Amino acid sequence: MSGHTTVSLAALQNVAHRLRIDSIRSTTEAGSGHPTSCLSAAEIMATLFFGEMRFDPKNPRHEQADRFVLSKGHAAPILYAAWAEAGAFDRDELLKLRTIGSDLEGHPTPRLAFVDVATGSLGQGLCAAIGTALNARRIGSDYRTYVLIGDGESAEGSVWEAAQAAVFHRLDNLCAITDVNALGQSRATQWGHHMEEFARRWRAFGWHAIVVDGHDVAALLAAYQEARRTKGQPTMILARTEKGKGSSQVEGKDGWHGRPFKKGEEADAAVAEIEARIVRTDGTLPIAAPPGRASASAAPNPGRMPAPKYTKGDKVATREAYGAALAALGAVDPRVVALDADVGNSTYSNAFAAALGDRFYQFFIAEQAMVGAAMGLAARGAIPFPSTFACFLTRAADFIRMAGISSVNVKFAGSHAGVSIGEDGPSQMALEDLALMRAVPNCTVLYPCDGVSAERLVAAMAASSGPAYLRTSRPKTPVIYEASEEFPIGGSKVLRQSDRDVATVVAAGVTVFEALDAHDRLARDGVAIRVIDAYSVQPIDAATLVASGRATGGRLITVEDHYVAGGLGDAVSEAVAGERIAVHRLAVREIPRSGRPAELLDRYGISAAHIVSAVKTLQQD
Amino acid sequence: MSGHTTVSLAALQNVAHRLRIDSIRSTTEAGSGHPTSCLSAAEIMATLFFGEMRFDPKNPRHEQADRFVLSKGHAAPILYAAWAEAGAFDRDELLKLRTIGSDLEGHPTPRLAFVDVATGSLGQGLCAAIGTALNARRIGSDYRTYVLIGDGESAEGSVWEAAQAAVFHRLDNLCAITDVNALGQSRATQWGHHMEEFARRWRAFGWHAIVVDGHDVAALLAAYQEARRTKGQPTMILARTEKGKGSSQVEGKDGWHGRPFKKGEEADAAVAEIEARIVRTDGTLPIAAPPGRASASAAPNPGRMPAPKYTKGDKVATREAYGAALAALGAVDPRVVALDADVGNSTYSNAFAAALGDRFYQFFIAEQAMVGAAMGLAARGAIPFPSTFACFLTRAADFIRMAGISSVNVKFAGSHAGVSIGEDGPSQMALEDLALMRAVPNCTVLYPCDGVSAERLVAAMAASSGPAYLRTSRPKTPVIYEASEEFPIGGSKVLRQSDRDVATVVAAGVTVFEALDAHDRLARDGVAIRVIDAYSVQPIDAATLVASGRATGGRLITVEDHYVAGGLGDAVSEAVAGERIAVHRLAVREIPRSGRPAELLDRYGISAAHIVSAVKTLQQD
Repeated sequence: MSGHTTVSLAALQNVAHRLRIDSIRSTTEAGSGHPTSCLSAAEIMATLFFGEMRFDPKNPRHEQADRFVLSKGHAAPILYAAWAEAGAFDRDELLKLRTIGSDLEGHPTPRLAFVDVATGSLGQGLCAAIGTALNARRIGSDYRTYVLIGDGESAEGSVWEAAQAAVFHRLDNLCAITDVNALGQSRATQWGHHMEEFARRWRAFGWHAIVVDGHDVAALLAAYQEARRTKGQPTMILARTEKGKGSSQVEGKDGWHGRPFKKGEEADAAVAEIEARIVRTDGTLPIAAPPGRASASAAPNPGRMPAPKYTKGDKVATREAYGAALAALGAVDPRVVALDADVGNSTYSNAFAAALGDRFYQFFIAEQAMVGAAMGLAARGAIPFPSTFACFLTRAADFIRMAGISSVNVKFAGSHAGVSIGEDGPSQMALEDLALMRAVPNCTVLYPCDGVSAERLVAAMAASSGPAYLRTSRPKTPVIYEASEEFPIGGSKVLRQSDRDVATVVAAGVTVFEALDAHDRLARDGVAIRVIDAYSVQPIDAATLVASGRATGGRLITVEDHYVAGGLGDAVSEAVAGERIAVHRLAVREIPRSGRPAELLDRYGISAAHIVSAVKTLQQD
Repeated sequence: MSGHTTVSLAALQNVAHRLRIDSIRSTTEAGSGHPTSCLSAAEIMATLFFGEMRFDPKNPRHEQADRFVLSKGHAAPILYAAWAEAGAFDRDELLKLRTIGSDLEGHPTPRLAFVDVATGSLGQGLCAAIGTALNARRIGSDYRTYVLIGDGESAEGSVWEAAQAAVFHRLDNLCAITDVNALGQSRATQWGHHMEEFARRWRAFGWHAIVVDGHDVAALLAAYQEARRTKGQPTMILARTEKGKGSSQVEGKDGWHGRPFKKGEEADAAVAEIEARIVRTDGTLPIAAPPGRASASAAPNPGRMPAPKYTKGDKVATREAYGAALAALGAVDPRVVALDADVGNSTYSNAFAAALGDRFYQFFIAEQAMVGAAMGLAARGAIPFPSTFACFLTRAADFIRMAGISSVNVKFAGSHAGVSIGEDGPSQMALEDLALMRAVPNCTVLYPCDGVSAERLVAAMAASSGPAYLRTSRPKTPVIYEASEEFPIGGSKVLRQSDRDVATVVAAGVTVFEALDAHDRLARDGVAIRVIDAYSVQPIDAATLVASGRATGGRLITVEDHYVAGGLGDAVSEAVAGERIAVHRLAVREIPRSGRPAELLDRYGISAAHIVSAVKTLQQD
């Protein structure tokens, strides 16, 4: 809006005072929290919410509304205070801060309608803000994204990944503010109040940087205006502030991070000191409305993806099928976007890029920014598929953790899983990705073995709610399913069975073929086994596993191209925990080395030969 | 050395030619690999190894030798070629590249004596190099550290974390070189050959930056010399190169990343083209010896840490005991160093800082650089303890993965584990850290419940080989062990037992006290249970678990302040997999929220009350 020039500066300053008081009162009542980190940001928050942003306090998720991301999530109390001040909810609620019955948690989560992504793990907000800014471009909106970051968190590398990505994507609809209060948790920050240290870095990375007094409401308003006028590049407003500003007990003092004022005299004095600064002004501050109308029907009506085109016996890598499916899905659903970290020609997301380049976002080798942006996109209605080598998703593990807490629809795809990649060696082999992803309790974890299941599972994960992960493999594998086969999440496929089965082998991905091979070898010796393709690792098909375990003498063997901890074996084991079934795990148990795929499968104990001997050993028990 | 002015430039250029030829031949023979990424770096490698660095090819681990870290690990073939050229091993070995019998893996690992840390996950080498540079300071050596990074990997945030840390620590013994070959894997890099884009960034971050022609051996030698003369700050040499340099088939061409030359005509032509450039020179290039003598006794003789000073019933948080133990250990063992990410007053590593400030390294809020530096320190004989909130170690998950591949002695400590932290909310609660750490197959995972066990386990992890992790808790808990108690890795403590036990409850950390409480509650109803403190989660005490499971009717209940996937329950389940024992897991199964610790333990199903009802339910089975 341009209306802020008419806003009363005194009224804005009063808002800042009130936000300070609310931050003190709520943290004192909670007995924990970070009031001094709120106090430094009071003028920034007051001017953003009541002099700059366009939003609807009664409909914070309005698709055209400007976005605000509080990257320094420990300042949550002032975020809550700002929304209460705006009328989103009753101010009295603030005193329930951090209690189990309230959604006003210690750090913001999307349990609150006005929070897009959970913050509190520092250095993530700017990445998410890139996502919300890219989303504006996707839906053709001129809404803007604002993000408040701390000076301390500027040490996180993810901030500089985001700095690069925002410039590469020319996000002039993005305005970041750094609250330079000079004090970290345990000590002064690296750069203290040397504002030029910040400005030099941001300018070197290609941002328009503005240094202002962060307690000067007029200067802040002018900076926002300058940011809006800045075209072709994002703006960073570097606001010099004092931690604990407004309370002489704590202002600029070290040792007050994460410490509330004590109830009684200490808190009362702080509140009184600030209250005394409130001046009389007339009327209330108007809040600027979102720039456009919210769509009557936000729910899209995507087309149905065509069936896979493979026929049984075709040889195709699941990563290749992923790329094909992603492009097909994107063609019928405008919400689908793809994000890459310079490996699109390995993950095959380049198939999407070729067809739908305007919804393909390149992040170069910066996995944290890629995943963070995906979180922001998902929070705004997109269905983002960030993909890279599965092992390099580990680089963004903390972002994946926060995606879980945010419950956003990010659809991760990791290629080159396991020792089956062969010669590149252990640094390129994901052998802990299932553990990582299963440890996100609301994350769907899928692991196809062939082209048909890979394609079907891409569609299934897009339709699912919350984060999901698809694990793909490097080698070509034969197509074993008819193109018409369905793969519901939580299901499995029993590939071989007879009423003479002495054991059940549960496999997924490349080990399905080892299990089928073992089946045939054992059959030649007159031994029958059941073979299950556990393509849905989380949720896993407990009913089928239990039934198969019972039917095969309580003998379950899992075989996975993954370390033994946290993967398929553990998932199966938990699924059958109610039964007295022994789960025998075949998995990688040491750091592997380079070699040919088949050599490695055998050396690390997950080949058909190992399955055969496991069956024979269990038979003798 | 200053002797390089006498080195024949023609001889150095010949070395570069030979390294190119070796890189082509070995990757062609392997049928995979990244020759073009080697070719761009040939003059850099030749001049570093034969005109600048001081080392002993027959004793690469010499404690005074200059270090070289190949951060762009996919250029491994030229690293191997350089060491072969130096005489470390026979050149014929190069043709075994990437085969299962050779340690010349696809990406470098410390299976090779001349590799300090595994690389191949981009953006980590500079962090590790900070560690080796800090180690020189620790041991009072003037050895220097060189690190070669790729231009593509400069997009990784970890590189910029390292950029900050190197400046903060004034590491003028660190010289980085960026191989600016302008081509990434899937496309041109962000900045191509715009050398000023790089120089501006590095200078803004406080480095001395030098732009050179990366194929000009004289210019490279001069740059190294300038770096050696530069005091008080690290140097970044920005070398403009061509990917595929030297072979007209591929030089500067996109689409050749990770593609070897085809055996036969294609490879032969490339080799012949380079061979033709080799000129006659006299003599061989001398290699500069390390600046000091290797210690006769590299094995230190650390003192023994005093016993903990707690008495039973004292209330102390395990995180606090960690800090006390770390300081006590550091006092008796000069190899022990501590690394912090601005939370030393929460993890209590500030106890170490107060006593041993010169071995306490602050990384501010940059967990990747902290862990990467710890890897470098460990590779050079230090015993580094990086610590932060356990949830924020997740930020460095990919570094932890690579620490496992490197098998380095990094001793991670994560505080504030689980929902028992209370009001701060899910973003601050580590609930997947056990899954993450257990998925590093050579990582010891420890989880003390009281002050005595915490202190003892700090000493045990320092004495152990390879990576280790200590999980500590926020709340104060009562001391339950005598100060003289020993806690061997792989052990456990049976805290309650009788011959009437109907079930075994396996707990660790804060849940030990819930289990003890449940024991007492059940005892009042005449029901006896066995209680085990599984302080060693990996390796876990399988013998005791199996024996207890058998003795208590095959009923095992695990209870952990962690998500159900990948933690204690899975560890116990795998340990008893050979038995037909049902493991009933009590664990957190959804994203938690803010609240009081006791409220959260109960709400998420891991309190004494839940243990009591689990025992009663199992009894009825």
